[in-house]
Amino acid sequence: MVMIFADPEVAAALDAATTVAAMRDALLAAHAGRLVAPPRAAAPLGGGRMVLTAGHLTGQWYGFRSYDTFGHPEGEQVVVLHDGRTGAVRAVAVGAELGSRRTGGLGGVAVDTLARPDAATVGVIGSGAQAWTQVWAAAAARPLREVTVHSRSAARREAFAARVRAELGVPARAVATPADAVARRDVVVLATTSPTPVVRAADLAPGTHVNAVGFKQRDRAEFGTDLLDAADVLVTDSPAQAAAYDPPMLAALPPYAGRLRDLGAVLAGAVPGRTAADQITVFCSTGLAGTEVFLLDRLAQVGAAAV
Amino acid sequence: MVMIFADPEVAAALDAATTVAAMRDALLAAHAGRLVAPPRAAAPLGGGRMVLTAGHLTGQWYGFRSYDTFGHPEGEQVVVLHDGRTGAVRAVAVGAELGSRRTGGLGGVAVDTLARPDAATVGVIGSGAQAWTQVWAAAAARPLREVTVHSRSAARREAFAARVRAELGVPARAVATPADAVARRDVVVLATTSPTPVVRAADLAPGTHVNAVGFKQRDRAEFGTDLLDAADVLVTDSPAQAAAYDPPMLAALPPYAGRLRDLGAVLAGAVPGRTAADQITVFCSTGLAGTEVFLLDRLAQVGAAAV
Repeated sequence: MVMIFADPEVAAALDAATTVAAMRDALLAAHAGRLVAPPRAAAPLGGGRMVLTAGHLTGQWYGFRSYDTFGHPEGEQVVVLHDGRTGAVRAVAVGAELGSRRTGGLGGVAVDTLARPDAATVGVIGSGAQAWTQVWAAAAARPLREVTVHSRSAARREAFAARVRAELGVPARAVATPADAVARRDVVVLATTSPTPVVRAADLAPGTHVNAVGFKQRDRAEFGTDLLDAADVLVTDSPAQAAAYDPPMLAALPPYAGRLRDLGAVLAGAVPGRTAADQITVFCSTGLAGTEVFLLDRLAQVGAAAV
Repeated sequence: MVMIFADPEVAAALDAATTVAAMRDALLAAHAGRLVAPPRAAAPLGGGRMVLTAGHLTGQWYGFRSYDTFGHPEGEQVVVLHDGRTGAVRAVAVGAELGSRRTGGLGGVAVDTLARPDAATVGVIGSGAQAWTQVWAAAAARPLREVTVHSRSAARREAFAARVRAELGVPARAVATPADAVARRDVVVLATTSPTPVVRAADLAPGTHVNAVGFKQRDRAEFGTDLLDAADVLVTDSPAQAAAYDPPMLAALPPYAGRLRDLGAVLAGAVPGRTAADQITVFCSTGLAGTEVFLLDRLAQVGAAAV
C-alpha cells in the first residue's frame, strides 16, 4: 500500500521538532557516508527542465524529489520513497510543504549547532514560505523571546509577525528596515529572492548566527562578501553541492572555500563549530540532496504509527 | 486534487483500444515536434541508478517516469503528470501496469501500421508481462484467429495460452519450439530476456510482421542480423533513442541504420511502410520517451470521466 501525502497531511504530521531531528540524522548519515546523494540530474523539456535529486540510505531506502524550472504558478514537487529491500514504492508526497519543511529543518539544525546556547532572538529578512519554515524550525532549536521581521511589503511583514505570534506563541514585530530587523539579534535569517545584498555585516551584533537561504552566488546574492569576511565560522550542509553551483557560490570561492565546513562534520564533532560567544557564524544552506526522501521516510513512519 | 493510480486501477481503466489509440496520437505528436522527449537522465545511487524519462506535450502537460536499476524483486515505477499551464500535479501512477501497457500499445500501433491488413495469426516467443501486452494490443489492431506461444517453461507457455483464450477470447496453443511458434504466422512477437537469438529469419513466412521487444543490441540480442537482412521494412518508435543505445542497437548500425524508419513518420504518411503483401516488416521497440506520461494523461481523462 502506497502512502500518499498532500500538503495538509505533511503539515499535520511533521512538527518542527520531528523535522529538525530528522535533518540532524540525515546530516550525520551523509557525513558517515551512509546517505548517498549524487548531483542532480535534469532533462530539458523546451521552456523548462525536469530535475531529479536522488538519495539512498544504504540498507534502508532510496528515492528522489522532482521539480521543474518552468516557473508555473502552481508548480508542485513530488517526493518518492522506495523500500530499500523490495524496491516497492512506500510513499509519495506531492506539493510544497515537504521540501519547504526540509529546508527549514536543515536551518534548525544549523541554529541548534552554531547559535549561542542562550540565543533567544531572531531577525528575519523575507516573509515567504522559506522565511517561515526557518523561524518555525529555529523555535524548535531554541526557546525564543522575540522575532523581528522585515520584508518590502508592509502588509506581508505584518502578516508574518502575526503568524509567528499565533502559531509559535512568540512575541514578534514587523520593522521598517532590514537593519532594524537584524540589529542586536542572536540569530538572523536571510530568506529573500533578492539578487543583491539586503544586509550589511556591520549591522550584525558580535555573536550572531546567520542562516542564509536565498541567492548566495557570485553576482547574485542576498548578502555581500562583507558577511563572509566577518564570519568566524562558515558552514554548509553540502560542501559538494556548494562547490557545484553555477554561477559559483560565494562561500565556495577563494578565499572562503578553504574554511567552508560541513555541518554534518561539525555535528559529528569531527571539525569545530562555534568556539566563542562573540563569534559570527554563517550557515550557507544548499539543501543537501536526499534529505527530502529522508524526511518522507520519517513522515511515513509517523503516518503509519498514527493509523 | 491529485489522481492516484495503482496497478488495479490502471488495468481497469486502460483497455487495449484506448491504449493503442493513445500511442498512435503520441507517435504522431512526436513526429510533428509537439511531444518533446529528451534522452533519459540518471542519478547514481551506489548499487543502482535512479532513472528519469521525461516528456512535454507543448501547451498541454509535462511529466516523467522514474525507474531504478537496483533489480529489487518488487521494484516499481512512478509516472507523474503535471498540468502544462499551472504546473500542478494532476496524476501519479505507481507500479508496472502503465509502463507495460505503454510498450504493448506502441507494439499495437506497429502491428496496425505494418502488418498485412488481413493479418490474423500471432506467434509469440516469451511468456512474460511484455509478451502479454504485445498480444493484448495486437488483438486490438487486428481480429485474431489464433495465437501460438513458446517459452522455455512448459507451464508458463501453457498458462500464457490459457490466458489468451480466457481474456482475449482468441484460440491459442503452446508449442514446444520457437520455430513452431513463428511458422506461418502473420505477426511474430519476440519478447524474451534472451541475449542470444531465439529465432531464425528462415523460419518466418513471407509477409510476416515482427515486433522485437527484448534485447536488440550488438552482442546482446534475441535475434540475429539475418532478421534485419530479411526485413524489407525496418522501423522504430524513436530513431534518436535507437541511435543512443550502448552497446549499439543492431538496427542502428551500418548497413541497417540508413533504412531504419520512424514509426511516427510512417503513420503520418511522410515515409512509406509496407508496400507489398510478401514483405517482411520489423519493428524495433525502444519505448519512445514521454509516452508513459502521454498514457497517464489519457488515463486521467478516462478516470475523471468515470467519476
